[in-house]
Amino acid sequence: MHRVLLDVDTGVDDALAIAYAVRSPALDVIGITTCFGNVPVDCATRNTLHVLERLGATGIPVAAGEAAPLFHPPMRAYPAQFHGEKGLGDLTFPDPEGKPVSTPAAAFMVDQIRRYPKQVTLICVGPLTNLAAAILHAPEIISLVRQIIVMGGAVGAAGNCRMHAEANVYSDPEAAQLVFQSGAPITLVGLDVTMKTELGLEDVQRWRERDSDLTRFLADITSYYIGGYRQAYSGREGCALHDPLAVAVAIDPSLVEVQPMALQVDLEGIHSYGRTVADLRPRCTDRPNVDVCTGVDAKRFQEHFIQTLMI
Amino acid sequence: MHRVLLDVDTGVDDALAIAYAVRSPALDVIGITTCFGNVPVDCATRNTLHVLERLGATGIPVAAGEAAPLFHPPMRAYPAQFHGEKGLGDLTFPDPEGKPVSTPAAAFMVDQIRRYPKQVTLICVGPLTNLAAAILHAPEIISLVRQIIVMGGAVGAAGNCRMHAEANVYSDPEAAQLVFQSGAPITLVGLDVTMKTELGLEDVQRWRERDSDLTRFLADITSYYIGGYRQAYSGREGCALHDPLAVAVAIDPSLVEVQPMALQVDLEGIHSYGRTVADLRPRCTDRPNVDVCTGVDAKRFQEHFIQTLMI
Repeated sequence: MHRVLLDVDTGVDDALAIAYAVRSPALDVIGITTCFGNVPVDCATRNTLHVLERLGATGIPVAAGEAAPLFHPPMRAYPAQFHGEKGLGDLTFPDPEGKPVSTPAAAFMVDQIRRYPKQVTLICVGPLTNLAAAILHAPEIISLVRQIIVMGGAVGAAGNCRMHAEANVYSDPEAAQLVFQSGAPITLVGLDVTMKTELGLEDVQRWRERDSDLTRFLADITSYYIGGYRQAYSGREGCALHDPLAVAVAIDPSLVEVQPMALQVDLEGIHSYGRTVADLRPRCTDRPNVDVCTGVDAKRFQEHFIQTLMI
Repeated sequence: MHRVLLDVDTGVDDALAIAYAVRSPALDVIGITTCFGNVPVDCATRNTLHVLERLGATGIPVAAGEAAPLFHPPMRAYPAQFHGEKGLGDLTFPDPEGKPVSTPAAAFMVDQIRRYPKQVTLICVGPLTNLAAAILHAPEIISLVRQIIVMGGAVGAAGNCRMHAEANVYSDPEAAQLVFQSGAPITLVGLDVTMKTELGLEDVQRWRERDSDLTRFLADITSYYIGGYRQAYSGREGCALHDPLAVAVAIDPSLVEVQPMALQVDLEGIHSYGRTVADLRPRCTDRPNVDVCTGVDAKRFQEHFIQTLMI
């Protein structure tokens, strides 16, 4: 059982990732930080607190984070097509009883990583704004953190928000570049692998039949998300499990194949701004800075994910 | 037997491609145009005339072309590591007796394509400067040409001259973009497939043992080229057959698999200038403009190539 910090922009698949991490016996979720991304940050914080209530896990502290990219106004509209206007599909719910801690997300990250040196796995499934801010404030965390698992980027795969750019990286490309170049031990769970995962309506139906408060909730929000996928990707009958796969890599690294790469984020160019670019030349002499996931045992992951939440 | 025009920047693998095309019974080489690229254009013209003398094919007209990119000074140094200072390894030879025709390359292309409407296959294995100039002068050739086969680009593969850019496209990115966006029927034979081909020293030895004037020549220049590969790509024991593979696609299209793509050339950005970018999003609604080779039967091609020149 090892300590994890989740950094989220809750969103449907963030909610699934939170539930998966909290319910996994292998992980001890010591805190959750929130960020703008799928929704505005206040909404992400509210959704996160609600998900923890659904999970009966209100003891996990939530720290609210950045509301916009580090260096410029937001790059893109919130993707309501996938997550709904308020982030959890079309679900409405009363304000959570819990409140975020008073410490802002970046400072909270720094505190936790300092408190448990070499023990914390940071799982980032939103824009990398909070983490970049944390590194700017306290650069020593890059050698104190155990591992950073990032859901983001697309090295060989097509983008999902621009032609080549993945949504989390595109939401704050400068922050992502700062994190990737920091020297921290990073595993990148990008569209190259997440797009190979899928949850279909028949899987959602298994949750519905289980008929617990949690599984009904998961089924409702996931149905909405799948609807977005069916609209956006004609012919696709299910949704990808982007954020949950990042959690899975913390639970069981053998689910993915990784390749060390010299990776950076393009910060200019109409087609390339926000694209993750890797130097794959045999002649490349740059030191690899990121372990990029290039393969995934999707079937084994999906079954583990569904089963872990079948309660 | 169909009519082909070759556009070359002769270079070792251009010389191999010329020999392959001229010796192939399936092709009728009606002319060769030259361009800067692997060497300065004057040198490319001289080398081309020499190769035709070696082939006993001095009846094929050669038209000299562009000396520099369309819109700016040359982007890169000539790659002597692979082709030698003068383009044919370390070979020296007296000036050819033949001379180029008085018509410049771009005008020569236009003349030939107009003369044989829907019959000419244009095989471009250097920078696309001549062809871009031809299209600028006579846009109607894009609907008069039968097919344009371009050795160039790298869609998923690493670049060979910059991190992501292939040498021919990088040598004149604006020209390449103009050609790709022209609406002409283009098949792209890029590093995605050419890097999967290989000619080794044992293959060169077969030419040496054949011991004709032509095979000795081919063996000499190819040995030099393989030396460049061994230096540049540690662990690689042979050279790739970039330009010959473009000729092979004209001879037998079944050697490659193609996928229609919406392709363009990035014209900005430190990492991306000169990169061929394809929109591979399932949601992409742009009309495909280029048939990109994504697979190759390398073994069958290599054997056909060696055998065709075993004379």
